[in-house]
Amino acid sequence: MRDSGDLDKLVKVVSSALPGDQKFIALHEPRFCGNEWEYVKECLDTGWVSSVGKFVDRFEQDLAEYTGVNNAIAVVNGTAALHICLKLAGVEQNDEVLIPSFTFIATANAVSYCGAIPHFADSEMRTLGLDPFKLSNYLRDITEVKRGHCYNKITGRRIKAVVPMHTFGHPVDLDPLMEICANYHIELIEDAAESLGSYYKGQHTGNFGKLSALSFNGNKVITTGGGGAILTNDESLAKFAKHITTTAKIPHKWAFNHDQIGFNYRLPNINAALGCAQLEQLEQFLIKKRALADSYRKVITEVDCVSFMVEPEFAKSNYWLNAILLNKPDITKRDYLLEKLNDQGIMSRPAWTLMHKLPMFAEYPKMDLTIAEGLEMQLINIPSSVVLGETNE
Amino acid sequence: MRDSGDLDKLVKVVSSALPGDQKFIALHEPRFCGNEWEYVKECLDTGWVSSVGKFVDRFEQDLAEYTGVNNAIAVVNGTAALHICLKLAGVEQNDEVLIPSFTFIATANAVSYCGAIPHFADSEMRTLGLDPFKLSNYLRDITEVKRGHCYNKITGRRIKAVVPMHTFGHPVDLDPLMEICANYHIELIEDAAESLGSYYKGQHTGNFGKLSALSFNGNKVITTGGGGAILTNDESLAKFAKHITTTAKIPHKWAFNHDQIGFNYRLPNINAALGCAQLEQLEQFLIKKRALADSYRKVITEVDCVSFMVEPEFAKSNYWLNAILLNKPDITKRDYLLEKLNDQGIMSRPAWTLMHKLPMFAEYPKMDLTIAEGLEMQLINIPSSVVLGETNE
Ligand SMILES: Cc1ncc(COP(=O)(O)O)c(C=O)c1O
Ligand SMILES: Cc1ncc(COP(=O)(O)O)c(C=O)c1O
Repeated sequence: MRDSGDLDKLVKVVSSALPGDQKFIALHEPRFCGNEWEYVKECLDTGWVSSVGKFVDRFEQDLAEYTGVNNAIAVVNGTAALHICLKLAGVEQNDEVLIPSFTFIATANAVSYCGAIPHFADSEMRTLGLDPFKLSNYLRDITEVKRGHCYNKITGRRIKAVVPMHTFGHPVDLDPLMEICANYHIELIEDAAESLGSYYKGQHTGNFGKLSALSFNGNKVITTGGGGAILTNDESLAKFAKHITTTAKIPHKWAFNHDQIGFNYRLPNINAALGCAQLEQLEQFLIKKRALADSYRKVITEVDCVSFMVEPEFAKSNYWLNAILLNKPDITKRDYLLEKLNDQGIMSRPAWTLMHKLPMFAEYPKMDLTIAEGLEMQLINIPSSVVLGETNE
Repeated sequence: MRDSGDLDKLVKVVSSALPGDQKFIALHEPRFCGNEWEYVKECLDTGWVSSVGKFVDRFEQDLAEYTGVNNAIAVVNGTAALHICLKLAGVEQNDEVLIPSFTFIATANAVSYCGAIPHFADSEMRTLGLDPFKLSNYLRDITEVKRGHCYNKITGRRIKAVVPMHTFGHPVDLDPLMEICANYHIELIEDAAESLGSYYKGQHTGNFGKLSALSFNGNKVITTGGGGAILTNDESLAKFAKHITTTAKIPHKWAFNHDQIGFNYRLPNINAALGCAQLEQLEQFLIKKRALADSYRKVITEVDCVSFMVEPEFAKSNYWLNAILLNKPDITKRDYLLEKLNDQGIMSRPAWTLMHKLPMFAEYPKMDLTIAEGLEMQLINIPSSVVLGETNE
């Protein structure tokens, strides 16, 4: 490739921020250096590995305490959490739900599980997440509010909810989004799958939505193997979330009665045990992740054609996945970088294919998506494991 | 209660078959006495706790080998397994699916997740599962086959599948059921959630359906904390099942493309590790469960008003949950027994409330359900853990 000088320099500086003695550096691997084994062993020794057990209760309490959201309901993964958040926010068959096109597939799939239709919105460079100003202008043009509901004038369908996603741990600008939601009678659900440990104006993400979803997949800041949680400040929604994720069984000393179609979305106790141990270490993990981001930032600033994604000014990010942005969208350059980095054993990847480009979502409504289209061609993620920040502390 | 003599005798004999030194005897608790520790610790030590890892692959291979079904796909639980079985068998929105009314809620819920309608069928005393002869007569009356599909003449809807469930581990009579499926162009899906280790005419359950579902919930013969598996002898369905349960992502060195709406139904590696260790012990577990069933049978035979459920003559059962049947349905007697046993710390429970009696399924189609209605009032399950069979070997 011509003009690859800057890119080659970038590969060098990224490499310089990473340990030199490893053949392969993963994008994000978990770190188990706390009470993981002790808690898991306790599950095996007592036989409490499954759907009830003290670690599930404790993990829920610990999550509520950590995030400052009143209630946390542990579930089997982040996708399940999103599904239930949408359902409990009242999303019904044939509703539309606004989501970023620039997101992981789970956000769109969860909308589909409700029989609803994802409606794709653009992102902004500042946060990589939903652009509230662009959204506001768009809604002004295409919607009307009737009898307390927001309708898409073009499709005739109700727009029931919006799901901002805190991309790679960087919080979206929530204040203007909440204002939009209030004005248009749209429910706010935060996809906080990537943002445990991230704060918007001093408050933990997940506090702003009617309900919010966390993920503890193996690649996240902390992991339970597979797992997720629903967060909500609404007591009765929290009760409902617990009920419907545990087959909607009515408590009784022996009878099996269920009062509605429920789900088996429970998190097993053994996975919750892992989560309790991981959560104890989260503050330490975040310090190390920030140290790694810092050293990336310092060296990447030296390179001309790119920038390093830093937290928005109103936020404190968990720096879940570090991201480099080409100054201009350029898929050739992006792929050159990806090839070079991966060839050197530095695992890196582009962001997701935009949702509106996937065959099953191609016909769904969308606004102008210029920024998202650019991001797809200009962003790459680089190794971000906690362990990589330990030498950088 | 009048005439409680026999029942009181029953409580005594059940108690005599159980260890006398325990305050509380659970209905079914897991047993970890193999390589559980070692395998789970390996996951923690290597960091492979999540969605990929060697134990997932190995558990799938071990399950295929054990059951004799060509392919096993590990998933997050039995409910998810059933959902995907139905989907892959071609169950679509507004189809009807025949299921026993006498089953656990998951069978009916999974049908609902497909947007399809459960159509309730009766059970037979021999197996506690679907009665093929009654079903055959019923289908002759209410269906017609047009262009290779079976239609319910009354509702006009297509009947796409039938899901027999092997209740408490006792296999249903599969041969006549398969004949019905062939004649009426109905797909057979086995709900084998309760029947790992159970054989029909020498072949493991799960070999007869187009696809079948297993569960490894904490109360099952073996457990993974939470978990399940899809079994199928069809190679291409197996590939499809793996694909759609792992977000339908197209393999690529870095790109995120998904070709359809998929699910996050993966079993985490740490849960699969547990499964591998448990499966190694299954043969031993089955011997102990059979020993326990044997000692129950011997003492319960002495009591007049009841019988002990034994495996059908064509089957070898895993005796997952032992069951006592009152000779005649009698809810007062049933509840008397339940009270007495539970009061003594001998955990026992009735079977499930029949599906067609639950509010969300009350309006759905059903045949005459006399046997199921009786079973609800005459059956109770008594403690069945592996460990209880250890003193009885
Ligand atoms: C933005 C986003 N939403 C949802 C999810 C779904 O979480 P899970 O993988 O735990 O189902 C993820 C993570 O995978 C994610 O990154
Ligand atoms: C008959 C039947 N079907 C399905 C399931 C669902 O399995 P799981 O609990 O693993 O989702 C179970 C067990 O709970 C069951 O007994």
